[in-house]
Amino acid sequence: MTDATTDPQLLYVQDRLSDEEIQREADLYGPLTQSVRGLIAATLQTEVGDADVRRARALIEEAASLLQGQAIPGPYGVRWGASGWMRDWGNAAAGLRNAVAPPLEMQYDQNGRTWVDFHLGPQYEGPAGLTHGGVSALVLDQVLGDAARASGHPGMTGTLTLRYRRPTPLGDLHAEARLDRVEGVKTIVTGHIADAGGVCVEAEGIFILPRWAREAAAEHARVTAG
Amino acid sequence: MTDATTDPQLLYVQDRLSDEEIQREADLYGPLTQSVRGLIAATLQTEVGDADVRRARALIEEAASLLQGQAIPGPYGVRWGASGWMRDWGNAAAGLRNAVAPPLEMQYDQNGRTWVDFHLGPQYEGPAGLTHGGVSALVLDQVLGDAARASGHPGMTGTLTLRYRRPTPLGDLHAEARLDRVEGVKTIVTGHIADAGGVCVEAEGIFILPRWAREAAAEHARVTAG
Repeated sequence: MTDATTDPQLLYVQDRLSDEEIQREADLYGPLTQSVRGLIAATLQTEVGDADVRRARALIEEAASLLQGQAIPGPYGVRWGASGWMRDWGNAAAGLRNAVAPPLEMQYDQNGRTWVDFHLGPQYEGPAGLTHGGVSALVLDQVLGDAARASGHPGMTGTLTLRYRRPTPLGDLHAEARLDRVEGVKTIVTGHIADAGGVCVEAEGIFILPRWAREAAAEHARVTAG
Repeated sequence: MTDATTDPQLLYVQDRLSDEEIQREADLYGPLTQSVRGLIAATLQTEVGDADVRRARALIEEAASLLQGQAIPGPYGVRWGASGWMRDWGNAAAGLRNAVAPPLEMQYDQNGRTWVDFHLGPQYEGPAGLTHGGVSALVLDQVLGDAARASGHPGMTGTLTLRYRRPTPLGDLHAEARLDRVEGVKTIVTGHIADAGGVCVEAEGIFILPRWAREAAAEHARVTAG
């Protein structure tokens, strides 16, 4: 592969996989990624002695080496199958194959609300025992961006404003967002994160589809129609 | 351990480890965490067949099981050694023991500037081939918060405003922040993320030390003086 793999426009790929093939990949890679999430927590929490740490590290290196035997050289990108099933499996907040992601499995209701119930383990800590303010921002950027897309106005984040009303605990949390209004190329979305006690963080995002993405979409429509 | 481990105030711990003992822990756990970071990327990028994926997963489960043999039950918290060396090793942006963190190794110059050069691999993707807007937020929340602390005005994030000027690539990046002004209990800090071509994301943060933290600090000073 070449430098082309770092060109964002070339990482939006229609690979035309069937739904069955995509499901097979999800069943294979989902549990692998979930195991890595458990390992991340164990790495943070362990108090075993030096010998066990070194043995664990050797096992981890062996696993990574096996997986690297055949691998893409850069980011995962965004892929679409034959039926339109989108895979943003490398996404840092939502990616099925990304162990950094909690992951967020978004829901959409019929009233235009995008929401997700999720769990944050010890690897999302900022202030002692609490969710990192930047992790709340990561969750809200994803939920608000998905709400913009669900409303028919996809875009990249232009401005994101976060108001931290009270500390966000780790553990079971809820986030949601909905379209507020559209102003030309700007889509304004609002949302929040809440725990059982109510709202912890409020957010407003302005999402804008960049010109190159609008042009690429138009070009893609032209080519596939031709 | 009890529910007390989820009480934020009890996760600020003076464990009085010597600098030598802390360095020994850093030398043991730092490379382990770095290996897990490599595994996260390999998990995202692999294209090996089912049998190798299953073998890798078994190795990962074995490593996690070894590490869980003796482990703390919850978040890492924030710990201080005898000399005052602070360990926020569970921090999602900066933690030496947190494989989710890039990690950010902050620098402080004599002009009040807090800055960091860092690298984002494929696990920080949002839009195809680009850094996730929420990961930029995570980095900036940490850098701005550290700049507030470095200025002598530590606090938790009250408000964070991010302006995405142009797409942030993955790869080698730079972030920096400095104190703008102090207004009562509010510390206002500004900063940005840049690549080789200039500023990608600008941020302004308002940091506030919550009342319980001010009271805990006062109580701690009273007890240690007594």
